[in-house]
Amino acid sequence: MSSISLLTDLYQLTMGQAYFEAGMKDTQAVFHLFYRKEPFKGNYAINCGLRTVIDFIKKFSFSDSDITYLKSLKGNDNKPLFSLSYLEYLAELSFLGDIDAIEEGRVVFAHEPLLRVKASVIVGLLLETPLLNIINFQTLIATKASRVCLAAQGDKVLEFGLRRAQGIDGSLSATYACVVGGVHATSNVLAGKLFGIPVKGTHAHSWIMSFDSEEEAFDIYSKHMPNNCIFLVDTYDTKKGIENAIIAGKKLQESGHKMLGIRLDSGDLNELSQLARKMLDDAELHDASIVASNDLDEYTIQELKKQGAKIDTWGVGTKLVTAYDQPALGGVYKLSAIDKNGEWEYKLKKSEDLIKVSNPGILNVRRVNSKELVDIIINEDENESKTAVMLTSAREVSYTQNSKTELLLKPIFKEGKYIYSLPNFEEINRKRIEDMESLSPEIFNFSLSSKCYVGMDKKLFETKQELLSKL
Amino acid sequence: MSSISLLTDLYQLTMGQAYFEAGMKDTQAVFHLFYRKEPFKGNYAINCGLRTVIDFIKKFSFSDSDITYLKSLKGNDNKPLFSLSYLEYLAELSFLGDIDAIEEGRVVFAHEPLLRVKASVIVGLLLETPLLNIINFQTLIATKASRVCLAAQGDKVLEFGLRRAQGIDGSLSATYACVVGGVHATSNVLAGKLFGIPVKGTHAHSWIMSFDSEEEAFDIYSKHMPNNCIFLVDTYDTKKGIENAIIAGKKLQESGHKMLGIRLDSGDLNELSQLARKMLDDAELHDASIVASNDLDEYTIQELKKQGAKIDTWGVGTKLVTAYDQPALGGVYKLSAIDKNGEWEYKLKKSEDLIKVSNPGILNVRRVNSKELVDIIINEDENESKTAVMLTSAREVSYTQNSKTELLLKPIFKEGKYIYSLPNFEEINRKRIEDMESLSPEIFNFSLSSKCYVGMDKKLFETKQELLSKL
Repeated sequence: MSSISLLTDLYQLTMGQAYFEAGMKDTQAVFHLFYRKEPFKGNYAINCGLRTVIDFIKKFSFSDSDITYLKSLKGNDNKPLFSLSYLEYLAELSFLGDIDAIEEGRVVFAHEPLLRVKASVIVGLLLETPLLNIINFQTLIATKASRVCLAAQGDKVLEFGLRRAQGIDGSLSATYACVVGGVHATSNVLAGKLFGIPVKGTHAHSWIMSFDSEEEAFDIYSKHMPNNCIFLVDTYDTKKGIENAIIAGKKLQESGHKMLGIRLDSGDLNELSQLARKMLDDAELHDASIVASNDLDEYTIQELKKQGAKIDTWGVGTKLVTAYDQPALGGVYKLSAIDKNGEWEYKLKKSEDLIKVSNPGILNVRRVNSKELVDIIINEDENESKTAVMLTSAREVSYTQNSKTELLLKPIFKEGKYIYSLPNFEEINRKRIEDMESLSPEIFNFSLSSKCYVGMDKKLFETKQELLSKL
Repeated sequence: MSSISLLTDLYQLTMGQAYFEAGMKDTQAVFHLFYRKEPFKGNYAINCGLRTVIDFIKKFSFSDSDITYLKSLKGNDNKPLFSLSYLEYLAELSFLGDIDAIEEGRVVFAHEPLLRVKASVIVGLLLETPLLNIINFQTLIATKASRVCLAAQGDKVLEFGLRRAQGIDGSLSATYACVVGGVHATSNVLAGKLFGIPVKGTHAHSWIMSFDSEEEAFDIYSKHMPNNCIFLVDTYDTKKGIENAIIAGKKLQESGHKMLGIRLDSGDLNELSQLARKMLDDAELHDASIVASNDLDEYTIQELKKQGAKIDTWGVGTKLVTAYDQPALGGVYKLSAIDKNGEWEYKLKKSEDLIKVSNPGILNVRRVNSKELVDIIINEDENESKTAVMLTSAREVSYTQNSKTELLLKPIFKEGKYIYSLPNFEEINRKRIEDMESLSPEIFNFSLSSKCYVGMDKKLFETKQELLSKL
């Protein structure tokens, strides 16, 4: 596809024109992207989407055909919706602002800014919808993936969701996010090619069915794909299937190869895995893996683990890549400051619910990770007070601001220039693991609702109160 | 993006190699795509995805970089996963088979083949995953959209879901499917450009907040976008907002323009719409629309309609484009026949549950739309018996096969050649409306579970029983 810069809501473009015609085209503004509620009734999320965001921003520019299309749009008087001068402005537009963002794989929490845009108000608006689209979805899936991996307690987790994912990119970006969340490999070959993710898979029921017998199907597969043998054993009768797989595995050994394992895709996965483990062990195939698939998610995996299932590799599909029990993260993007004669005028979005009132200023997140306080939302435009007001309880907690504490928003673009270097999966994994190991374990217990560990710097809290009372 | 032909599961490629090396590269096979359960606990689905399928098939071919990537993959002995001869074969591959499919916008039911592939067994397999990905998602969303439109009882429905959709294509193909399902317009400008869908939208809370007052925000917007004014009235106080919108609307009238309406995005939408309608009517703004948004779906719209809400345009987002209450359709793709020395050998996938056993043969769907029997699954390879066996009750119902009955699967590709002509949205809409008007109304009552109207030709039923008893 050529330009995808029109991937935005129409109202961003109509508001853009109104700002433009009102002489505000160079007015600078600050926006933050955050979500208000942890997904899956959990206590955290795994931040993801930055890679796609960077790609989108680098290519952000309207092509001739984009402009021609916009020119064709009409208002309710059947006259053009957009003025020629505005369209000329759009035709020249590129991203010249700053973006600061939390890195992929980091553990994040509700209300924290995940990404900050400082740009002209028009550009800031035009980016709202694509940034939300990208980050909402990828953060949702990375979080789901990390939960599935937690349930699997270190076992291998494979992503098998392509056939039920929400569209082509719904699968590709889901697969990427799954790996950011801790998944080890995917069945999606295109994702493997594009992102360098290990690809896995062996054969399907249709393979078995296309031959006269299961034995023949295993034999022919072993002969022609001897270095990739995980036999699917449940097409006809699972016990017989395991027996046939063992025979095929022995033959592979004789020819100098090795059976990787078997796959169970139906029935009582606990019972069948116990049976399979015993049969494989009795046949001295101790190394053979038992892969399970069939509508798995973190809850079914947790339950199977509790039952003592002898499964060592989990193929997880639909429920992972669509985040089946909560298929959208409700992230929002709010204006927090606008330039007024060279000064930042702070802005917030009111709500009857105090915690839903957005935060004003030029925000960042300081991670202190102390016993009761993990993160503090601060305003970079003001001095920090060293006291945090907890978001949910409004209790005050003092904190130290030293070299060991970290500002989570990192500079990605500065005055339009890309100044970041994308880490590879290994580095992203390391960050995620470090975060998960250093933070309180109760945060990662997904059957338990933990307390809120996020506060707001007291100075920011006071600024917000002041602004609220003025409205 | 260049080639996306690798958008498939790895096991399709490994099975492909085993077929290839076993000398079966030219073996013809027949596969059918169908789903087993109506989505959303409803009684029907709206078929969608064919446009994307056609695009995928036309471009189906592995690029040099695809082959290079496949060449780099290793098996468990660290030797190449794929043989050079197989890779050479893949490099030359294109689609030379037949595809027959039900058209977009048609009302379809569980167990019916939506699409049939007749091709070499390898190509049939390679297409399984992308076809499922495309059709599962788009059919799911088109169905959801039709339900939302049914609830809206002919009111305009706008799709506003881009920011929470599952990825970039998750939004684009969702928007397309929404229109196939009956939605009137979208906020997604790129979808508007790519598919020729009307685009709609006006302004956001951030627009209002960026000025000193709501009055000023409405004024500036009216001045610069006078032919696109739907005022968002709930940023501060909704009643005051409606008053300000009326003032702005009157000013627009004075300058020869027309306010399109107002938008409500929070609060009690029924009460507020009644209030707004009265205030607008009292101000002689009878034509002004009342647009509502805020987490709507078919159930909330149905409830608001019941309460007598004065809303005439529904902006529906997250719950529509992600199919929130059931974010995946469990469509499957099954081998039903394979060439054995020039004869079709029928195949089926066994299951303990008889209705889950797949149907053998070269299938089509005959729509008779009689009182108790809507569709019959037939085997084109055998003569029809004129008696249908109902899928759930096994009751026999006779049917006539005449010129008024229609075969739903239409030829799309014949020996690799594209022989179909994609209808435009108007034609697709006409087909959907014709289907919905001619079929029993109870099918479209989404609070009611209707009986099953689908049968299987008795000859096919007997063939299936015979095959089952042999296994």
